[in-house]
Amino acid sequence: MTSSDLYPVSRLAAVQEATAKAGLDALLLTPGPDLRYVSGYDAKPLERLTCLVVPASGEAYMMVPRLELPAAQASPASRLGLEFVAWDETDDPYAIAAARLGKVAGKVGLADRMWAMSSLRFREALPEAEQVLAGSVLRELRMRKSPAETAALREAGQAIDSVHRQVPGLLRAGRTEREVAKDIAEAILASGHATVDFVIVASGPNGASPHHDVSDRVIQAGEPVVVDIGGQLHNGYCSDSTRTYSVGEPPAEFAAYYEVLRQAQDAACAAVRPGVSCESIDAAARDIIAGAGYGEYFVHRTGHGIGIETHEEPYIVSGNGEPLEPGFAFSVEPGIYLPGRHGARIEDIVVCTESGGERMNDTPRELVIV
Amino acid sequence: MTSSDLYPVSRLAAVQEATAKAGLDALLLTPGPDLRYVSGYDAKPLERLTCLVVPASGEAYMMVPRLELPAAQASPASRLGLEFVAWDETDDPYAIAAARLGKVAGKVGLADRMWAMSSLRFREALPEAEQVLAGSVLRELRMRKSPAETAALREAGQAIDSVHRQVPGLLRAGRTEREVAKDIAEAILASGHATVDFVIVASGPNGASPHHDVSDRVIQAGEPVVVDIGGQLHNGYCSDSTRTYSVGEPPAEFAAYYEVLRQAQDAACAAVRPGVSCESIDAAARDIIAGAGYGEYFVHRTGHGIGIETHEEPYIVSGNGEPLEPGFAFSVEPGIYLPGRHGARIEDIVVCTESGGERMNDTPRELVIV
Repeated sequence: MTSSDLYPVSRLAAVQEATAKAGLDALLLTPGPDLRYVSGYDAKPLERLTCLVVPASGEAYMMVPRLELPAAQASPASRLGLEFVAWDETDDPYAIAAARLGKVAGKVGLADRMWAMSSLRFREALPEAEQVLAGSVLRELRMRKSPAETAALREAGQAIDSVHRQVPGLLRAGRTEREVAKDIAEAILASGHATVDFVIVASGPNGASPHHDVSDRVIQAGEPVVVDIGGQLHNGYCSDSTRTYSVGEPPAEFAAYYEVLRQAQDAACAAVRPGVSCESIDAAARDIIAGAGYGEYFVHRTGHGIGIETHEEPYIVSGNGEPLEPGFAFSVEPGIYLPGRHGARIEDIVVCTESGGERMNDTPRELVIV
Repeated sequence: MTSSDLYPVSRLAAVQEATAKAGLDALLLTPGPDLRYVSGYDAKPLERLTCLVVPASGEAYMMVPRLELPAAQASPASRLGLEFVAWDETDDPYAIAAARLGKVAGKVGLADRMWAMSSLRFREALPEAEQVLAGSVLRELRMRKSPAETAALREAGQAIDSVHRQVPGLLRAGRTEREVAKDIAEAILASGHATVDFVIVASGPNGASPHHDVSDRVIQAGEPVVVDIGGQLHNGYCSDSTRTYSVGEPPAEFAAYYEVLRQAQDAACAAVRPGVSCESIDAAARDIIAGAGYGEYFVHRTGHGIGIETHEEPYIVSGNGEPLEPGFAFSVEPGIYLPGRHGARIEDIVVCTESGGERMNDTPRELVIV
């Protein structure tokens, strides 16, 4: 896949149209996923302002520190035919950006991850503008993955699956979580990811903390281990998959609830199809877990959207009535956590298609005993 | 060094006092360097709100997603005796934080890197508060490094110096910039850094772009190569050092301006002492470079502060009249860049002491011909 497939030149016009339709005067996109999505430019977040200004009408332009101009020119953003407005060390780039934009008395959309050091400067430079999130415009586009984006998520899924297939060979009693995690991190990079975004290796009682990272705890025989891993491909798209392993035969109570969890995760994946609400996917998993008496031990939402961010919209959570559409991509990752004892989670990335959900991960979901 | 040395428990009270003195009602610190500086907690930036609320008077508390509670409790923040206010997936953490804070009609300070997705939610939750940067309070503390912080910067300097000492063995004609950079990145991690923050390997004409990253360009005999590298230690403190090497004998014009640069960098380091302004350090380097006729080729400021961020205050730039004080830590990194041909930069981290500047880096500054 090339930048032109994943970050098509036509996207800027679509964003501009959506900006106008949403009643915003402009989007102000500083480095981060919003900027990358619109322009393909994976700019470094720095204290010096880089900002793509997308007015609802008229020409878009990009404020760039003179030092970063060669990088911007070498980036996919150069395909867009934008003007790069280079500013010098003693200039005020906020004032320059505002002056070019002209009077703004309506709304401006800020990149969701714009730093306060920039949003407050833009507030001064555009005092009559009401700041809202650019996400209010971009979410509608970013949630609906194109075929090229779905292919990139599939590639990311295959890459992280290749790492999970190595995990049984890395897990054994006597190793620490940290030792295992180090090997996994190397395997994530070797599998084609540009970055390692997270490596959770949660053994025994640590498995009961859903966001446990790693520790120097030594893995014991008979212990379940939750392994939740992901990274970002060079093209920007992210992987995220969880499997729970057992080092030797697990406790009987664990095996019992693991089977409940497996059925719940399967049911939630099977429930994915256009028109079904996000919260009903959450409910599909939660109802089975609660029905088996483990409801209080499933302490988080069922999933999050994924694309050029590991966590983005849509969120698969109670209260989110948004109906699924083809191209929506998200995790389905219910878990059961028994405090002080152990826990389990199973996670696949699922893309909604016309005919149902397509999983991006396909390593075994049955308990793997190593 | 332990967390208690670098992130002392007493800091929270000092921050609270500074907040009151600056006339702010509270600081709102989301994950990033400001939160880490105050609490020692290196929290992951996520869409779920984690926020240390520091009122000018009364008890500080930390909003934490329930999922992250074990991580927060296991972090150095637990030493502070704070209340962790855990919120559940369907709660509105902004409303909860605001309700606990009570009516705020004055100023609240936002972490400089707070994402717009949070600052705009806080604007709704605290509609009468005026948002300013927490940096306006914290900069006064963060700029003045403690002896423990200076020791951490020294440790970071020694670690990155050990990498620069390996560079002559990695650079040779026929290798690509990317191949060299990969080896350097591995050496940065092996030297004790937790992360590789940047690896610039800029050969020949690429050396004329100050923020060139790496490319697949093959290094040629007789070419200067700018190598600017840095990372973050596990304790949070950062390294950053640049040396320019030559693969074989460089062009005579290069050797001539390299010597000017070396003298300029030396003069700027020698000018460091309490009471001297930031901009006069910039001028100390710039005057020598301009005096030799290369003024137009030195296209950036002379330096940036460094600590738990690679770029922080104070900035060593024209227009910054702030006088140096003992404990101020910053880079001194003039450069000369001849577009289309080659360039050079020399960078040390310098800490201002009572008796002058102490350099944190000590690899040779003379041109190293490999």
